Amino acid sequence: MASAQTSHELENKPLAGIRVIDFGQIYQGPYATFLMAKAGAEVIKVEPVTGEPSRQRRMVNKGATVPFEMLNANKKSVTLNLKSEAGRALLKRMISDADVLLENFAPGVMDRLGVGWPVLHEVNPALIYASATGYGLDGPDRDNLAMDLTIQASSGMMACTGFPENPPVKAGPAVVDFMGGIHLYAAVVTALLERTRTGKGRLVEIAMQETVYPTLASSLGLQYELGDTETLRTGNRHSGLSLAPYNVYRASDGYVAIICVVEGHWQNLLTVMGREDLKGNPCYESHAARAARMDEVDSMVQDWAAQLTRAEIFEATKALKVPSAAVREVCEVVKDPHMHNRGMLEWVEHPRLGQVVMPNSPIRIHGADKVPYVAIGDLGAQNEEIYGDWLGISPDDLAAYRREGVI
Amino acid sequence: MASAQTSHELENKPLAGIRVIDFGQIYQGPYATFLMAKAGAEVIKVEPVTGEPSRQRRMVNKGATVPFEMLNANKKSVTLNLKSEAGRALLKRMISDADVLLENFAPGVMDRLGVGWPVLHEVNPALIYASATGYGLDGPDRDNLAMDLTIQASSGMMACTGFPENPPVKAGPAVVDFMGGIHLYAAVVTALLERTRTGKGRLVEIAMQETVYPTLASSLGLQYELGDTETLRTGNRHSGLSLAPYNVYRASDGYVAIICVVEGHWQNLLTVMGREDLKGNPCYESHAARAARMDEVDSMVQDWAAQLTRAEIFEATKALKVPSAAVREVCEVVKDPHMHNRGMLEWVEHPRLGQVVMPNSPIRIHGADKVPYVAIGDLGAQNEEIYGDWLGISPDDLAAYRREGVI
Repeated sequence: MASAQTSHELENKPLAGIRVIDFGQIYQGPYATFLMAKAGAEVIKVEPVTGEPSRQRRMVNKGATVPFEMLNANKKSVTLNLKSEAGRALLKRMISDADVLLENFAPGVMDRLGVGWPVLHEVNPALIYASATGYGLDGPDRDNLAMDLTIQASSGMMACTGFPENPPVKAGPAVVDFMGGIHLYAAVVTALLERTRTGKGRLVEIAMQETVYPTLASSLGLQYELGDTETLRTGNRHSGLSLAPYNVYRASDGYVAIICVVEGHWQNLLTVMGREDLKGNPCYESHAARAARMDEVDSMVQDWAAQLTRAEIFEATKALKVPSAAVREVCEVVKDPHMHNRGMLEWVEHPRLGQVVMPNSPIRIHGADKVPYVAIGDLGAQNEEIYGDWLGISPDDLAAYRREGVI
Repeated sequence: MASAQTSHELENKPLAGIRVIDFGQIYQGPYATFLMAKAGAEVIKVEPVTGEPSRQRRMVNKGATVPFEMLNANKKSVTLNLKSEAGRALLKRMISDADVLLENFAPGVMDRLGVGWPVLHEVNPALIYASATGYGLDGPDRDNLAMDLTIQASSGMMACTGFPENPPVKAGPAVVDFMGGIHLYAAVVTALLERTRTGKGRLVEIAMQETVYPTLASSLGLQYELGDTETLRTGNRHSGLSLAPYNVYRASDGYVAIICVVEGHWQNLLTVMGREDLKGNPCYESHAARAARMDEVDSMVQDWAAQLTRAEIFEATKALKVPSAAVREVCEVVKDPHMHNRGMLEWVEHPRLGQVVMPNSPIRIHGADKVPYVAIGDLGAQNEEIYGDWLGISPDDLAAYRREGVI
C-alpha cells in the first residue's frame, strides 16, 4: 500500500490509503476511478497536455462536459506526455509509490510507449495494473475498433433490443461503457484484496464485449431451446414470450410498465381493472394460458390504461401490489425526490456549470464517511502538488518540463 | 476471515478463503456470487425447500434453466427454511464462521424473518451483509415493486431507447439486473478489503435504479443543455445528434454499426466508399457540418452498405481503421471464435443440458488459477456436507430437520 496509508489510516472510508494513477478516458475508465474516489481512494487523473477527449468537449457546449464533470469528481488533475523520456520517468516515479494504474486505451498502446504492464510491474511488483478494452488483450479480434455502439452490435445486445417489426436498436444509455467500468472497478478491488494476503500485484483485465454476455441470460435460454434461429426481438414483451401481462402500456399522459410475475399479480390486476368477471375463467388462469392469447391480454390492459394517467395507474397497481412503474423522462429522473432523499443525487453549486445535479456512488457502504462532490480542477491543476510536493521536482525543473511539453 | 482460510491460503485464486452465504435469486444476486465463486470463494447457495424461482423454471423447459445453470456454477447447494426457529439457528451457526451474506429480497424481508443485518451483525461483527433491491433500503419509494422491466422504466433507460417515431422500448437484455449484480459484487469486495484494515463488517447496499443513473451520462448532458424537455430518443444515432456518421446501416445480409469519431475516420470512410471526390468538400469537413446534413450523410453510407455483406463492410472499414461491427445474432455470439479462443466461453458437457456453452467471469485476473465449470448440484445436494460435516449436526438430527421441513 502507498505511503499515503499512514495519514489515511484512521479515515472511515473503505479505500482510504489507496493511490490510483488514472489514465481513464471518456466513460469507461473514469467511471471505475470515480467509484474509487467516492470510496476514499486518492485518484490522480493523468491527461495528455491537450486534455482527454471528454474534457475537450467543452468546445462543443457546457452540457457536453456534464459527463466529464460527473465522472471525474474528487480526482486530482495532472498532465503528462508519455511520448517524452522525462514523462515516462515521472510516471515510473509515481508508480513506485502507487497501488493501482488504470487505463482504457486500445490494446498495446501503453506497451508501445514503453510503460506497459511488464515494465511497470518491474518498477513496483505490488502494482495492480488494470486494462479495459473492447475485445480484450489477446485473441483474434483484439484489434477490432471498439466503442459503446460497436460493442452493442457485436455482443448481441442490439439484436435483442427493439420491436420485432423494426430494425435492431441500441440501448440508448452507454450501458456497455459502464458495464465495462464497473467490472474494471471490481477487478481492481478484487486484486487489492488478494494483495493483502499475497503482497503481489496483478494485471487485471476487462473486455467490454465479455461483460455483456451474461446479460443475455434470457435470450441464451431461448437460443438453447430453439437452436440457431435469428434472435427474436420482443419489444417490451418478455424475452421468452412466456409471461403476460408483461409490457409497456400507453397511459393518457405517457407510458407505464406493468408485469404479472406470479398468479396473485394477475388476480389483483383484474380487481384493479374492474374485471373481476374474468376471475376463475380458465382462458386466463395461468401464464401459459395468457401467453397463448397475449395480444388479447395486452389489449385488455391497454384499453384500461389508456383512460388513466401514469400516476393513477401506478397508485392503483401499487395499492394491490402489482409491479408497475411509469416510464420516466430523464428530466424527471434528475429531480427524483426518492434518489435525492437517499443522497444518491444532490444539487451542487458547480464552478463551471452552476446549479447542477450530481450523483454519488451507487456502491453504498453503510456507516462509511461520505465523500462530498468536489469538481475536478482545470487541466493540470495539481501538477505542483503531485510533481513538486510529492515527487520533489524543483520549481525550475517543473518550469522546464512545462516549456518542453513534458507536463 | 472464515476458518476455511487456512486450507485455501496457498490457492492461487483471489477470493480463496472467503466464505459466502448466498440467498441470491433470479439474476441479480446470483450474478454477484457467480463472480465470487469464479474468483475462488466458497459460495453456499441457500434456497427454500422448494428451490429458488429460477430453479423452478425447469418446469417450463430445459432452455428456461440455462440462466440458472450459468449463474449458479461452482456453488454448493443447501436448503433452509428461515420461517422455522431451527432454520434460523442453522443460519446463525453458519454466519458465525462466514465472511459474507448476500441477498436480493425486497427490503425488510430478512428483518421480518428475524435475521436482518442488526441480528447477524451481532452474531458475527466481521460479517459483510450485502443487500440488493430495486430502489434501496430507505426513502419514499423503498417499497415500490421492482423488476428489471420496471426499473428500466423508472430509471430513464427506457425513455432513451428506441426510434423517435416509436414508443420507448427496453434494452432487450436484463441489463439492470446485471448492473445491480456487478455493483453488489463490487460493494462486497470493497468491504472485504476495508475489513483487512479495520477487522469490522459492514452493511453494503445496491439499489438497481441508482446503478442506471451514471449510464445516462450523454442524455444528462443534453438535459442540462436543453432544460426540461422530453428525452429525445435517437434510435441508433448519437444521443446528442452531434456525430455523423454514427448509425446502424442495412447490409445485404443484416446490419452493421459504423462510427466516425475523429475526422480521419471520415476521410478513410470516403476512401472505403469510393467517394474520394468529396474529400475537401466543406459540406462534409467536420462533425458539425455532417451533423447538419445527417439524413444525407446517413443515406450516402446506407446506399453504399446496402450493396455489401456485413463481412465485406467490416473488412473494408477495418482495413482503413474505421470503427465498425456487424450486428450479431445471439446464436453467432454464443459461438464467437474470439471469446472461445480467450476462454471466456467454453463448451461443457452438462449433466442436465448436454453440450452447452458456458461463460467464465468477465473479471480476468491474469496469473490466477482458473475455476473450471462445475454444475450446481440438485437442490440441497450439499446439505450433509454443510450441516453435517461443517456444523456437526448428527445424521439423526438432519433426518429430523428434513422431516420437519427445516431443510
